[in-house]
Amino acid sequence: MNGTSELSSARFFDPEPVQRRLAQQLYDSVANLPIVSPHGHVDPNLFADETARFGSPAELLIIPDHYVFRMLYSQGIPLESLGVPRLDGGPVEQDQRKIWQIFADHFYLFRGTPTGVWLAHELSIVFDCQLPLNSATAQEIYTHLENCLAAPEFQPRRLFERFNIEVLCTTDAAWDRLEAHQTIRASGWQGNIRPTFRPDGVVNLDAPGWKANLDKLNQASGIEISSLARLIEALEIQRAHFKSMGATATDHAAVVPLTQMLSPMEAEAIFQRALLGELSGEDIQRFSGHMLMEMARMSVEDGLVMQIHAGSLRNHNSIIFERFGLDKGADIPIATQFSRNLQPLLERFGNDPRLRLILFTLDETTYARELAPLAGHYPAVLLGPPWWFHDSLNGMRRYFDQVIETAGLYNTAGFNDDTRAFPSIPARHDVWRRASANWLAGQVLQGIIQEADAAEMIVDLAAGLARRAYRLPSK
Amino acid sequence: MNGTSELSSARFFDPEPVQRRLAQQLYDSVANLPIVSPHGHVDPNLFADETARFGSPAELLIIPDHYVFRMLYSQGIPLESLGVPRLDGGPVEQDQRKIWQIFADHFYLFRGTPTGVWLAHELSIVFDCQLPLNSATAQEIYTHLENCLAAPEFQPRRLFERFNIEVLCTTDAAWDRLEAHQTIRASGWQGNIRPTFRPDGVVNLDAPGWKANLDKLNQASGIEISSLARLIEALEIQRAHFKSMGATATDHAAVVPLTQMLSPMEAEAIFQRALLGELSGEDIQRFSGHMLMEMARMSVEDGLVMQIHAGSLRNHNSIIFERFGLDKGADIPIATQFSRNLQPLLERFGNDPRLRLILFTLDETTYARELAPLAGHYPAVLLGPPWWFHDSLNGMRRYFDQVIETAGLYNTAGFNDDTRAFPSIPARHDVWRRASANWLAGQVLQGIIQEADAAEMIVDLAAGLARRAYRLPSK
Amino acid sequence: MNGTSELSSARFFDPEPVQRRLAQQLYDSVANLPIVSPHGHVDPNLFADETARFGSPAELLIIPDHYVFRMLYSQGIPLESLGVPRLDGGPVEQDQRKIWQIFADHFYLFRGTPTGVWLAHELSIVFDCQLPLNSATAQEIYTHLENCLAAPEFQPRRLFERFNIEVLCTTDAAWDRLEAHQTIRASGWQGNIRPTFRPDGVVNLDAPGWKANLDKLNQASGIEISSLARLIEALEIQRAHFKSMGATATDHAAVVPLTQMLSPMEAEAIFQRALLGELSGEDIQRFSGHMLMEMARMSVEDGLVMQIHAGSLRNHNSIIFERFGLDKGADIPIATQFSRNLQPLLERFGNDPRLRLILFTLDETTYARELAPLAGHYPAVLLGPPWWFHDSLNGMRRYFDQVIETAGLYNTAGFNDDTRAFPSIPARHDVWRRASANWLAGQVLQGIIQEADAAEMIVDLAAGLARRAYRLPSK
Repeated sequence: MNGTSELSSARFFDPEPVQRRLAQQLYDSVANLPIVSPHGHVDPNLFADETARFGSPAELLIIPDHYVFRMLYSQGIPLESLGVPRLDGGPVEQDQRKIWQIFADHFYLFRGTPTGVWLAHELSIVFDCQLPLNSATAQEIYTHLENCLAAPEFQPRRLFERFNIEVLCTTDAAWDRLEAHQTIRASGWQGNIRPTFRPDGVVNLDAPGWKANLDKLNQASGIEISSLARLIEALEIQRAHFKSMGATATDHAAVVPLTQMLSPMEAEAIFQRALLGELSGEDIQRFSGHMLMEMARMSVEDGLVMQIHAGSLRNHNSIIFERFGLDKGADIPIATQFSRNLQPLLERFGNDPRLRLILFTLDETTYARELAPLAGHYPAVLLGPPWWFHDSLNGMRRYFDQVIETAGLYNTAGFNDDTRAFPSIPARHDVWRRASANWLAGQVLQGIIQEADAAEMIVDLAAGLARRAYRLPSK
Repeated sequence: MNGTSELSSARFFDPEPVQRRLAQQLYDSVANLPIVSPHGHVDPNLFADETARFGSPAELLIIPDHYVFRMLYSQGIPLESLGVPRLDGGPVEQDQRKIWQIFADHFYLFRGTPTGVWLAHELSIVFDCQLPLNSATAQEIYTHLENCLAAPEFQPRRLFERFNIEVLCTTDAAWDRLEAHQTIRASGWQGNIRPTFRPDGVVNLDAPGWKANLDKLNQASGIEISSLARLIEALEIQRAHFKSMGATATDHAAVVPLTQMLSPMEAEAIFQRALLGELSGEDIQRFSGHMLMEMARMSVEDGLVMQIHAGSLRNHNSIIFERFGLDKGADIPIATQFSRNLQPLLERFGNDPRLRLILFTLDETTYARELAPLAGHYPAVLLGPPWWFHDSLNGMRRYFDQVIETAGLYNTAGFNDDTRAFPSIPARHDVWRRASANWLAGQVLQGIIQEADAAEMIVDLAAGLARRAYRLPSK
Repeated sequence: MNGTSELSSARFFDPEPVQRRLAQQLYDSVANLPIVSPHGHVDPNLFADETARFGSPAELLIIPDHYVFRMLYSQGIPLESLGVPRLDGGPVEQDQRKIWQIFADHFYLFRGTPTGVWLAHELSIVFDCQLPLNSATAQEIYTHLENCLAAPEFQPRRLFERFNIEVLCTTDAAWDRLEAHQTIRASGWQGNIRPTFRPDGVVNLDAPGWKANLDKLNQASGIEISSLARLIEALEIQRAHFKSMGATATDHAAVVPLTQMLSPMEAEAIFQRALLGELSGEDIQRFSGHMLMEMARMSVEDGLVMQIHAGSLRNHNSIIFERFGLDKGADIPIATQFSRNLQPLLERFGNDPRLRLILFTLDETTYARELAPLAGHYPAVLLGPPWWFHDSLNGMRRYFDQVIETAGLYNTAGFNDDTRAFPSIPARHDVWRRASANWLAGQVLQGIIQEADAAEMIVDLAAGLARRAYRLPSK
């Protein structure tokens, strides 16, 4: 048999029988806890409309998921043949079954990958399909999924309930009016969905569409953004709006996590050059470093938890970027340094208990070298879970291995699924819970952690740490 | 007992009995497959002469092997006492048994090292010598090896056949006339030995003997290399010659894998300065970055697979370099970055399925951070196996651990032995096959990979991936 | 039960029964060997006075230990409430039982950390206290410890003897007159305590109190330090003094391990600028790079083993530094490169068997990439054990994993406890011996190392390598 069916109930645990047994026991104690999802990219519109549907199996599982199509592309399969829309509206494959067949024909490429693991979980558990996915079974599975997706119990709100999601935080541009969130709240539906404030599109001066973003922020906030002072005012207004809609956090992307306070005059001058389209030299980096300081200051004041996701060189492949746009699997990490870059921010705000700063990295060398020591000293700092390429079984093992000894468990932020693929959420949390249980079992059997302590820690790992880190109310 | 005899048939497998059993089963299925050796440094002259011999045991196993003598040197043993020839022809130890005795006296230094593992395999399996190597057994083992090497079945061609080598690719300077390769072909012997085109000595302007190399290329190609355009012409002629002799690949060393297209005027100007011996500032790096672009362009055109081996700071120890020359164990790796450095080349050629670019690193931090994401996106990129210091059991484990989740197995290039030590080839491939089997067994037992899939993957790992990566015909 | 009691006799060994058994057997063979402690920061005054005492449990285990209070601080507990003295003499908690209670209330923070592991060992084995430490047991344990510390068998010299310490090397400023060491020697007590020469405070021109340090060196050496030449003379005098008092080593901290010989004129000019308080640009780094060359030259001449500890960015948090001073848990590592930085020193002295240079890193990426290749080539270089944040079970596993294959065991320097927490010394060596035994057991069971060899290697790891590396006489 060829494929990914037959999910073992002991999957991801160490083969050694005693460790396996203890891991299973720890896992079982949290397997059914509600899901806390404090950071991700699910579209809130899915839940705004009671009757929303997910579309075809290909529209659900392939076309929007850059984890999936980048792997196919890496083996020479054109994105057009997978139905990925072109920016110029040029022709791409429309036949959903054909797209699905290509995917199934190449599903072997995902052997040993987290995407393979998640998809196996989704097919088997979310869609109750026990066939292995391959060329021969592709169409039968497609039909099965299509039938599922047509059923009312596969509407987004129903899956949200079935997945037992306690809270789901979305990521929303600073200029977003949060209409979907308002609709959800107004609908009377009990799903707990919260926005997250992400200002990258206006504070990173090289963001695609920066000027247009500024106009949108202008309109959303009612502030005419003619100066940096007005930009800051507009951001503060929008933060308050987000907070009133349930937001507990902000999110910031930085290629390099530089922080530094500029003189008001210099900061304003850069902003004016940006308005005139006359940026020079290091303007962009200096400005974003300054704005991270401003954002930390605002977080101290309004209590929104600050997240920094650093080190992704976006849109590495300009051919793909120009034809298909952002988020097409062509973002490549770079070496990142935090110790010096964050020093100005941490010296100024890192001792203040009102600030909570959660750091994410794509450069695992920083775990033990920089991030764990920072989180293990500064009251403000927590270390986010393994991110993106490292949101995987090995990534989690390396994270536990390199972080906990120095930072301790309680300077970490639990788990984020960070996904735009809604039906993969249970799979991702399941991987984390299993990896956590297996790690704890190993610690107990090596006499490092007491079994009774491990029983508490697995509950923290499954949900408690994330709740606390993001200042989310317990249910 | 002190030494390395008693090769266990389950060596290198996890101690856990169930994993060990499955690893053994996977390994057994490929243990006898032919060896595909697509990249290495064996001297083709060994096979050009039907009657060639390997020399003394010390000449075979110590004097030419910098993996061996660097370790002895690190403990204060002069290279002269090991018979390593001096450039000035000064006196070095000539007594082969004395050299061997020093080696045996210090063989404990290799405990836990790949060199120790390979030598144990060679002694036990290639030479059928089951004594452990130490001070007491040194001379008896020497006699045994001497007797072996005198026997006809230890002639290079006979070992090639006994090793079941399907194909062996050598590495040859761009100006090589491939006379040894021609002799092999003309001899009617069926051994499949192919050259690889390596132009470093002329495209790296600081290569030792650059001017002399250029003259040799001039003579080999028949092109008077008075300009960059003529250099490129000469390289193209030689590539065609290599290809006609069976080459399927090129190889490029770069301290820093910078790529960038210069203007024709600038590139030519640098080349002219090099001819005049008037290089300045960044000329060398800019020129090699430009030539990597040219080489990629040629690979797109002629289909030769392009390899880049990056990040070795050669000849770190000038005392050793001046006395003994290149490749004396004094090459020290440095931190390497690929994401930005390769962007110009990948943007231009990385989407072209005609290009195949295999990347090698000595900086393992780039596996998960840069190389796996690049290989998991660009159609042209494959990731080469663990290289040099990392061609080891732990190196392989770290490679599987850090690469496969993001790149998938099918964006890797299988195994290279990369050796100049011909009798170590079976040992090196055996380590890889065992490490692969053990890794797959762990994946299966953790429920990540299906057992039936693993049975296919081990065959790919043992030979299939390398064949495909290097565009080598299946037998 | 909640805490860290119940030390398993098989702690830190792999759960797999066969490996566990072999690890136990290897460990048992060295568990009672004397402790060789060639590098650390224990105060020699503890042993100068026959009647010295350790103070309260909080004064012993919390207030001086930045490993402990940084973790509490990271969770928002003010250092004042832990009794850490303020530089300005401002009020801090004086109630030792209150401090202890806070510690116990938060002892769960240390789950899975080396500090947790060491404290568990200290309580259970050094103080024979089998209660788990938590809020409820805090005061009872405090009383128990207080009683212990009042007993004569807990005087420092008695614990030194009970710990079976063969030799303990302290770290002493270049200007130290070594009076405590002299008192120890004069007392007739047999404890073998040796100083180590540390000149950072005068050779790093930005060292806090540099000018005052220079004055002290002036007084200690009797040399008026008006020029670099006189500084070097003074250092040489003090080195001779240290050597006469039993020192076998020097120690050097470097943020960046740059080495380079300056012209005498430039070096002198920088020194004169330092005297005038007129340092500019790269003066500090260039000068320290030059002084490392001078120190290596002196080591060649006087045979003192040279240690370099690189890559710690000291006093990252200026609020903490200004209020509490140095060594308050706010030192954060940075990426470090050795290959290029050490080249000038190694080219000049690295082939000289009179030099022994032991390298320490906080950047584990350099283990396999740079340090193991350097140690595996240069006769002068040994690689120090996992340092500081990496002096932990995982840190040791990663070290063995990444270092031994390339450097071999015999280019490493055994173990250092590097601690100022005297009662943690047995715990730290126990962790190392157990980690070593477990690593060797794994190597044996995987057929990489012969069992008889492992039996020798565990003895080297436990004590022999450290003795040899630091040129300490065997007892």
